[in-house]
Amino acid sequence: MQNFVFANPTKIIFGRDSIPKLGPEAAKAGKKALFVYGGGSVKRNGVYEAVTSALKKNGIEVTEHPGVKPNPALSHVREGMRKASEAGCDMVIAAGGGSVIDEAKAIAAGMKYGGDVWDLFCGKAPVKDALPVFAALTLPATGSEMNAGCVVTNEDTRQKFSAHGAALFPRASALDPETTMTLPREQTAYGAVDSLAHIIEGYFTARNPDAEVTDEIVHGLARSIVASTRRILADPADYNARASMMWSATLALNGLPVCGYGGMTFINHAIEHSLSALYDIAHGAGLAIVMPAWFRHHLETDGPGRLEKFGRAVFGTTKAEACINAFEDLFREAGAPVRLAEAKIPASDIPKIAENAMMLIRMWGMRHEQPEIEKILKLAA
Amino acid sequence: MQNFVFANPTKIIFGRDSIPKLGPEAAKAGKKALFVYGGGSVKRNGVYEAVTSALKKNGIEVTEHPGVKPNPALSHVREGMRKASEAGCDMVIAAGGGSVIDEAKAIAAGMKYGGDVWDLFCGKAPVKDALPVFAALTLPATGSEMNAGCVVTNEDTRQKFSAHGAALFPRASALDPETTMTLPREQTAYGAVDSLAHIIEGYFTARNPDAEVTDEIVHGLARSIVASTRRILADPADYNARASMMWSATLALNGLPVCGYGGMTFINHAIEHSLSALYDIAHGAGLAIVMPAWFRHHLETDGPGRLEKFGRAVFGTTKAEACINAFEDLFREAGAPVRLAEAKIPASDIPKIAENAMMLIRMWGMRHEQPEIEKILKLAA
Repeated sequence: MQNFVFANPTKIIFGRDSIPKLGPEAAKAGKKALFVYGGGSVKRNGVYEAVTSALKKNGIEVTEHPGVKPNPALSHVREGMRKASEAGCDMVIAAGGGSVIDEAKAIAAGMKYGGDVWDLFCGKAPVKDALPVFAALTLPATGSEMNAGCVVTNEDTRQKFSAHGAALFPRASALDPETTMTLPREQTAYGAVDSLAHIIEGYFTARNPDAEVTDEIVHGLARSIVASTRRILADPADYNARASMMWSATLALNGLPVCGYGGMTFINHAIEHSLSALYDIAHGAGLAIVMPAWFRHHLETDGPGRLEKFGRAVFGTTKAEACINAFEDLFREAGAPVRLAEAKIPASDIPKIAENAMMLIRMWGMRHEQPEIEKILKLAA
Repeated sequence: MQNFVFANPTKIIFGRDSIPKLGPEAAKAGKKALFVYGGGSVKRNGVYEAVTSALKKNGIEVTEHPGVKPNPALSHVREGMRKASEAGCDMVIAAGGGSVIDEAKAIAAGMKYGGDVWDLFCGKAPVKDALPVFAALTLPATGSEMNAGCVVTNEDTRQKFSAHGAALFPRASALDPETTMTLPREQTAYGAVDSLAHIIEGYFTARNPDAEVTDEIVHGLARSIVASTRRILADPADYNARASMMWSATLALNGLPVCGYGGMTFINHAIEHSLSALYDIAHGAGLAIVMPAWFRHHLETDGPGRLEKFGRAVFGTTKAEACINAFEDLFREAGAPVRLAEAKIPASDIPKIAENAMMLIRMWGMRHEQPEIEKILKLAA
């Protein structure tokens, strides 16, 4: 095991009727909230009402900032910052999935930074401070509700970049599985793919794979995600499966499943970010395309060891290739695309995608060159 | 899954040379530390030197409070409080195992409480505040380095009681597996038993066992503890096994392995506390005696379901009785006693032990009567 630091101060309030409990938590942080959400789904499932009434009941003034899109846009972040400044907001509340929480974090960090908020994403400046962030999660997938990162897309430059800093941990997040009961099958599937993607990056690119306890946590979360996905596909109203999925997805990117692995890379995410930046496809769909291809590349470069271990523990497979196929079968079963063509991305675009991915790969300090990325993408063709 | 709240703010600094990193963390909290430790082991393994030099280097004045015993004594807590008051300490630093950290927490809470510190343990008053606590862990077992509880024994009344409160989370804990390399075989064994005991209480007494992700985490931690114990018994200098054991033991009682189980009981611990309060045996030894007996009782009252599931996932067994035997085999293999007689506790004492246990059972609000406890103890005879 390599040395590590684990520190995660986010308070998780989990279960039925947990959203109103954000009110008293928020009241400790301030008086005026910017309330960030997406489209109409939070109005249909009662989350909008639960958040606003909890805030009002606790004496918090609300300024609304709706309209967050999947792959949240920098221009919309700037608009949120303008609103927050005008209203004198002292905190940001998000209600939705990872995109909404990420935009809330970007606004929160931007409000405390003197310069252009994009500086925090393109590596020009670190996130040192942010307004307090609170979240009501409605889509288990990105883990943003319990981590210190956020991703925003710059529409002008077609760059999907991330910012990180301890100030971005939400103070408290409410996770009510009831809010996920009506999710479309597609979003359930993409959430499952995304969560799996988060735990495989560390596991398969660890500098030191002799970290048995972390391997066990990765296997356990993966088994839970796989089993919950299948239960949800069979019965979308299975509360305990929804709950297990929601908590698994949160734990998948809260720092725990990488403890002791040492230098890991985030290569699948780096490649996927280019797909969703260039084609505006769902992050989970992009990952379902990239992961099997990357696994096949990994098998060539690193041998079968980790794939065999993971497969045995999670899918009951023995051979590395069977583990990769099991991933692909699960993604197909859930309805996700597993090839570029299935997402209508032409193979002739591969050099362009790889070139875009290289920006992030260089910024994240990963040692990959464009030909290798093109090779991986060809395995997805 | 039942509703839950998970919040654990302790910063874990893990790995080789992690102890000096406590210095800058402590410097954020104050200027004068009460330094709590046990006997000579921290002087022999370099931990004493690492802590004191880190504190001095960061401008922190040190008042020493050595001599903490296993099953830390209330009188020694009071002595530590006197020293801390006289020196005007504004924080408490522990170096050692769970007993040392627990005593440090008791002192930290006592210093902020107006009345008698025992009030916080016998249910007369809640822990509302405490001096900041920091810990350098040298014995993976109790999980105190990343939780908000502590246990102290009142020698006058022969009561081993616990106190809890968010203020008792250590601000930061350093976990250097190197410090555990020279642990006697016995302490390694008792640590393993203790960690396993922490994760089985929730798993086997859960009000709602349909919490798949938490089951997976419990299975994973258990497998990691079992595998690490066997690696350490074979080669005490196996760093990665020591590291995996250390992090597993910390996670075993940090709140994570009970999320969603709802109302659980701590029955094995309640019975064991009486054994170590009455006979001053090691907590891990007492648990190795109580657990197999309690499992046999549980099999009668609750049926084989959970034992079969746990056994399949952790030991590769199928029948419930085989799972219990696998626990017992592991404890024997590690050198722990598994019957009262092996710890020289006469069966004729069973009513007295059960009577003592009932105090804690009532205080913790558990629904067990003395005849049931006597029955469990007879299964350990």
